[in-house]
Amino acid sequence: MDILDDKLVGACIFGQSGGPTAVINASAYGVIRTALQSEDITEVYAAANGIVGVLEDKLYDMGQEDPYELSLLLNTPSSELGSCRYKMKDPEEDDTDYKRILEVFKKHNVRYFFYNGGNDSMDTCNKVSRYMESVGYDCRVMGVPKTIDNDLYGTDHCPGFGSAARYIATSCMEIKKDTNVYDTPMITVVETMGRHAGWLAGSAALATDAGCGPDLIYLPEVDFDMEAFYADVEKILKEKGKVLAVVSEGIHYADGRFVSEAKTSATDGFGHAQLGGLAALLANLLKERFGVKVRGIELSLLQRCASHQASEMDIQEAFHVGKMAVLESTIGQTGQMVALNRKFDEEGKYVLSTTLFPLSKVANYENKVPLEWINEEKNFVTQEFIDYAKPLIQGDPKIVYEGSLPRFARLKKILAD
Amino acid sequence: MDILDDKLVGACIFGQSGGPTAVINASAYGVIRTALQSEDITEVYAAANGIVGVLEDKLYDMGQEDPYELSLLLNTPSSELGSCRYKMKDPEEDDTDYKRILEVFKKHNVRYFFYNGGNDSMDTCNKVSRYMESVGYDCRVMGVPKTIDNDLYGTDHCPGFGSAARYIATSCMEIKKDTNVYDTPMITVVETMGRHAGWLAGSAALATDAGCGPDLIYLPEVDFDMEAFYADVEKILKEKGKVLAVVSEGIHYADGRFVSEAKTSATDGFGHAQLGGLAALLANLLKERFGVKVRGIELSLLQRCASHQASEMDIQEAFHVGKMAVLESTIGQTGQMVALNRKFDEEGKYVLSTTLFPLSKVANYENKVPLEWINEEKNFVTQEFIDYAKPLIQGDPKIVYEGSLPRFARLKKILAD
Repeated sequence: MDILDDKLVGACIFGQSGGPTAVINASAYGVIRTALQSEDITEVYAAANGIVGVLEDKLYDMGQEDPYELSLLLNTPSSELGSCRYKMKDPEEDDTDYKRILEVFKKHNVRYFFYNGGNDSMDTCNKVSRYMESVGYDCRVMGVPKTIDNDLYGTDHCPGFGSAARYIATSCMEIKKDTNVYDTPMITVVETMGRHAGWLAGSAALATDAGCGPDLIYLPEVDFDMEAFYADVEKILKEKGKVLAVVSEGIHYADGRFVSEAKTSATDGFGHAQLGGLAALLANLLKERFGVKVRGIELSLLQRCASHQASEMDIQEAFHVGKMAVLESTIGQTGQMVALNRKFDEEGKYVLSTTLFPLSKVANYENKVPLEWINEEKNFVTQEFIDYAKPLIQGDPKIVYEGSLPRFARLKKILAD
Repeated sequence: MDILDDKLVGACIFGQSGGPTAVINASAYGVIRTALQSEDITEVYAAANGIVGVLEDKLYDMGQEDPYELSLLLNTPSSELGSCRYKMKDPEEDDTDYKRILEVFKKHNVRYFFYNGGNDSMDTCNKVSRYMESVGYDCRVMGVPKTIDNDLYGTDHCPGFGSAARYIATSCMEIKKDTNVYDTPMITVVETMGRHAGWLAGSAALATDAGCGPDLIYLPEVDFDMEAFYADVEKILKEKGKVLAVVSEGIHYADGRFVSEAKTSATDGFGHAQLGGLAALLANLLKERFGVKVRGIELSLLQRCASHQASEMDIQEAFHVGKMAVLESTIGQTGQMVALNRKFDEEGKYVLSTTLFPLSKVANYENKVPLEWINEEKNFVTQEFIDYAKPLIQGDPKIVYEGSLPRFARLKKILAD
């Protein structure tokens, strides 16, 4: 077999999907920069709002962007090219969308498709890959992982998680300091994202490990028990006079009901679901119970977009998975997700390394915090969790500031004809 | 008059009061470091929890602290020595507390008293100063300003505000990016602190000035009109499809009722005041009205404790007002607050400079945003506001990190015998 058999020349499309992260654009830069340098890739297109942009033939020509502006993507949060949550049907069930995608691919001679996202996006990627193969259209399809939730199967961790973890840990340290200043009892509840997996809530333990963090952490991997919660809080309150508890938005009772849902019926006078608000709900309940000062803090969107406190390791990994998706595809790979390994050098220092994992195996399996990484009392994580998360938050990023505020990328976003 | 007439030798007490800021400990370091170097100051004490620590004779001996740990105060948020909100009576009305303070001062031969806080604390400072003078006890009393609210009279701006402004502007830029990713209409409401003054909400305009910030800003200096708010939002929603509005927690209707209070009666099922939640209230109302996706984000404590995104200029000014309080007192000043000027060098560059302002004149007057700095539609600030705030957020601080998380000061806090 001739080495040149692998050669496939044509355009590429890159798309971003799902919820944004602080480093998703670093992956975009990894793909775009590497694709622009590739001999085999003739045109580099970015789909506006992910797969929707492909369906609508709304493609930005990345070749027309200023290289400096593209480089600023490394520290620009959120999905600069736009995202979507469009779920495609199985091609066996309804192939309308796939026919349309094939049409657009043929029109622009697209031979490479890189898709950046979480579980759903890897599924989309897999379906596109399978369809193109079934119709005999030669196109290499690669998945680029991202999600702050860190719940993607087939990779040790996900780009986006490390930065969210660093932001959460730093913020918890600062909140801990702030809530300790008065000589009166106080309970503070901090709510993180994480509907089904507790990686984000657990990362607050890094603050405790640094000497200034939460006393209690509750994850959605185990059932939440309100009476046990009250008892935990009471114990710390008696010992220290101050309590800092971190809860994942997805904590739920044994019967499966989200704790946050209980709130809706109890307090929302508008008759519809309230926005977040688990922290406020728990703070209210604790105030009723203990009669001390309470505060509920929802970290909200900032935990996924605070690029100013991103992890440099996470930025580099995000860039690298994008870069490797292009490099691997141009040497013949397809139907794969670029996954991150957990590797240490001889001195025990964590080092960046990637591997490939078949898209067909990513499926929609959610990677949760192992139960043995949650303590017996179900109110904190173990040292194993901390050891796992620590290497991922390393490094302070070199942010480009103008007037001491971040200078984000400003793309021209010129549509391909 | 002999220059040595000014010489007063004895111990000093420093105290922190009121709500914390990201840089209040930089002022502590300014006072403590300068006092430790002073020939005239024999012992440097820090009161535990402000004036309460003086009344309880709970004084930490700063001479026993490690100099490196003290230097870390520059980037440690919140009130490391503890704070209080204790309001002393007028000495003419009830001098019990003052007699006790005099007793403690005499016991430790305290001849210098430095008090760090906002309006109430400057008032405390002034009362202590007057009392010591009235009883003929030779003691120099200096006020060191701080407050993120920036509402202190007699100073161009307050240490703490610049850092809060930089955090708010940066966060608004990141939130703006995050809320723009989907191709569907969306309204986001961000709530800042500021009960009576709109400096914090207004500082979000720095994000807009940097090309990525809120469309609308509402300040408590003017009456809030819900119908006008709906009309403002609708206009932007039609134009851009996305709206980012920033509101000060203190916005109120023409009759004086806080907008946030309206919520309590409408939605709180527990029968007591809800925690914050103005952003969630407005988001709910906007959802009812426009039927689009909404999100309410309360910046909460982080705006006053996020030292990782502090302004270096603010840190330096905070340090400097502490330092000057000591230096000015040792050359004879008393009954003064160290105030910050607005000064520019020949090239138009903002430069740090201080002056003294009599404590007796600080009173409890609140320094609000000038009405002419709010636009005609009452939904944004003018260029004058942006020009005022810009120099105060300059410079990225040199944070000491350990394992990429902030390394805060760890003081021994050894009590004086």
